[in-house]
This record gives sequence, structure tokens and C-alpha cells, in this order.
Amino acid sequence: MGDRGRGPVPGTAPDGRGGPHAFVADLAAPRLDDADHHHLARVLRLRDGDPMTVGDGRGAWRPARFRLDPEAGPDADGEVIEVAAAERPVAVGFSLIKGGRPELVVQKLTELGVDRILPLAAERSVVRWDESRAAANLERFRRVAREAAMQSRRVHLSEVVAVGRPADVADGPGLAVAEPGGEPLGGPGTDPVDVVLVGPEGGWTDDELAGRRTVGLGSTVLRAETAAIAAGTLLVALRDGRLSSGS
Amino acid sequence: MGDRGRGPVPGTAPDGRGGPHAFVADLAAPRLDDADHHHLARVLRLRDGDPMTVGDGRGAWRPARFRLDPEAGPDADGEVIEVAAAERPVAVGFSLIKGGRPELVVQKLTELGVDRILPLAAERSVVRWDESRAAANLERFRRVAREAAMQSRRVHLSEVVAVGRPADVADGPGLAVAEPGGEPLGGPGTDPVDVVLVGPEGGWTDDELAGRRTVGLGSTVLRAETAAIAAGTLLVALRDGRLSSGS
Repeated sequence: MGDRGRGPVPGTAPDGRGGPHAFVADLAAPRLDDADHHHLARVLRLRDGDPMTVGDGRGAWRPARFRLDPEAGPDADGEVIEVAAAERPVAVGFSLIKGGRPELVVQKLTELGVDRILPLAAERSVVRWDESRAAANLERFRRVAREAAMQSRRVHLSEVVAVGRPADVADGPGLAVAEPGGEPLGGPGTDPVDVVLVGPEGGWTDDELAGRRTVGLGSTVLRAETAAIAAGTLLVALRDGRLSSGS
Repeated sequence: MGDRGRGPVPGTAPDGRGGPHAFVADLAAPRLDDADHHHLARVLRLRDGDPMTVGDGRGAWRPARFRLDPEAGPDADGEVIEVAAAERPVAVGFSLIKGGRPELVVQKLTELGVDRILPLAAERSVVRWDESRAAANLERFRRVAREAAMQSRRVHLSEVVAVGRPADVADGPGLAVAEPGGEPLGGPGTDPVDVVLVGPEGGWTDDELAGRRTVGLGSTVLRAETAAIAAGTLLVALRDGRLSSGS
């Protein structure tokens, strides 16, 4: 089972050594969608019988064998493994800006293990989408997140929520907005942060800031996309206990 | 001096509220190069007399006023401020890979405040450049770093070193290579890490790993470019004391 006789460890996500990872609707009878089959066969050049892993995007996955015939496989090649969701999910919101690279942000946040991604239309975002444009972009962001989750062997898909206003994000002790000069993210003696909202280059309006905790992401002035990626890196590292607050 | 009557704080870098930032050869008689003048006038649409800051890339900077006439300015508009270099510089090495986005990595590492950037030709990098190609790419990386440093108001330019082999990076207690399953970056009771090398998607060879500390960057499988950006985020946060090792 698996390559080199190394089986997966129960309760843990695939580590990439068991081949590429793809999402399927049904782990009992896995079928790849056309785009995924094409990617595995043509881009990654998998051969018939090569090891891979399949997941349902909700925490369950299993080893499998790729089949060149898209109607035939992949074949299950091991038990279904359930991985618990993070006890404390983390989220990053990022303001859409003119000339920004929202797909880059969605891709990186997904790879890093951020659980929820919130595209934001801030007051100074400039970007204004009508309903059909917003729907098309949301679908594109979700496709990017799905591809990035496969690439990084995630067993839980990141949720990309519909574009909303920063003011509409539910307040709570774990919510903070990124702002130069704010408390360090994960600062000592503070409540843990689990949601960080990143503003547009023009900054937040007073209304968007009102009454909210502010966190700083460093001493340099970060592009909005870089701030979102840095926030995701730090939130996940803090949540996973790899780092704690500074002294 | 400066906008809204707010002067710069001695010893600190510009925070972006004093206008855009550009590098000049001589702070006593600042002159913008053509590309920078064009960017400020045409892209950022600065008008004659608008506030900006100029820096020498080695820690010194001063407030200035933009001049539309490229031969005439900018005019100095405040004292020269010296900012000390980081006491503990941090560095990230990243392996060049086929289809990779090395400019993205250089840009993000510079914005985040990484002091030295080391493009690497790893054994499994695939990318092999001849001398003239390597020189052209190095020049391009340095241009990207300079632009990113202006964008993020850095007063010290990140140093981009010439492409080298991972084995040639000087060993030391602060050097670690990124590897799944390695000790957490900044883990408790360990020597601080100040240089992280990120391998190609195919991983390190045994020779490249031999005798070196390994650090993990999280539980997900990161693209090489994402791993480099995450390493830079964490190294700078740890160096600046915003975060410490997990418990």
C-alpha cells in the first residue's frame, strides 16, 4: 500500500510522498473530474497504477491508484482515514484592490492552512463588482482554493466566502484588523486572534476601524497581498502552537 | 515638514505617511533616476512639491519634496535620519525551479524585511543557467528587490547574492534547511535560526541535507515559493521579538 511500502499514519493528512492528491465526491467510489484527470495524466504524467491519494475535502482521504482510463478509476488502495478539523479555525480577510492579485492571496492562504478566506470590499477598495461579476469571481477563487488544497495535500478545503463589507464580518474578541502600529499579532497577555482583516493600500476608514482591535504585522510597509499572506502564516503558526507571543 | 505637520521620528524608518519612498545615490543632493521619476510622476501622479522620502539604501533617509522637473529635484525637506541595521540579520535561500516565480519570492522577502536573499541552484532544481543568463537574472532580481524596498519604505536594501549551490552556503548554528518533519522554526530550547534554505519541489538530496539542521514550516505541503515567503515571515517575526518559540 502506498509507495515504498510506507503506509499512511491514521489521523494525519497525506504528506505528498504517497503521490499527488485530488478531491472526489465519493471516497467509496472515487472518480476524478475531467480537469483533474487531465492534470494528473498530462501535466504530472502519472502512469496507470501510480499511487495517489483522494480526499473529500471534509477531512477524509484514502490512498488510491491512478487509472489512465478516466471512466475506470482511481482505484481505492487503502482504508479511509479521518483527520479532525482544527479545533480553533483561523480566517484571513483581504480587501480587493485595483491591480491586486486576489488569486495569489487565495492560493497562498489555502496552502498555508487558513480555514476561511474572506474577500472584502472595503470603503477604499476601489474595486466594485456587480452581482454577476462577483459570482464569477467567487467561483474562480473557489477553483483556485481547490487546486491549491490539492497541491498542498490538504484534507479540509478552505472555505472562500462571498465578498462582503469589512463592517459585516462578525465582531468578537478574536477579530482584529491589520493596521501599522497595532499590537503585535499574538502579543503577550492578549486574547488569541483567529481572524485578521487586511485593508486596501489606502487604509481603513474610521468607520471600518471603529471599536476593533488592531494588530501590526511587522515594521515594514507591506503590500496588501503580502500582509494577507504574512497574517495567514502567523495565524496558523500560532494556532498550531509552533510559535507563541513575543516576550 | 512632511505632510499634515507630522515630522519623522529620529531613528525610525519612514512609515509611508510622508509620501512615497525612492532610493538616491546622494542624500545631500538627491536625484531620481529616470525610471523612478517616471513612476512617481506618471503612475503615482505626484505633483510638484508633493512630499516624499529619499533613502540611500544603507540606513539613511530624509524627507523631501518631489519636483516635476527631473533635473531639479527632489528637494531635501528635513534632516537626514540614520536607522541602525538589524542586530541579527536574517536570510532566506530559495531553490530556483522550472516554472517558478523567483521575482515573486524576491519581492515578498524584501517587503517582509529579510536582509539577505540567496537564489539557489539545488541538485534537483532543474534550472541551469549559463553565466550570462545568471548575470541577467541576478540584475533582474536586484531591480525587483530595489522596487520592493521602495514600495515597503525600507531604508536598508535587501542584498540579493549571486546564484550558488546549497552546499556552498556557509554552515553555522543558525543555518537550517526547510524539510517536512523538521523541528518547528523557532522551536523551544533550540539555537535561534537566522538562515533558512528552501529546497526545490523534488526535495533535497542526501548530500544537501547532510549534517544540517532541518526546520518544518507547518503541517501542510507548501509550494517552494510559499515556503520561502513563510520562512521569511517567521524569521523576521522571531528576530524582531514579535513572536517566540511555541510552548
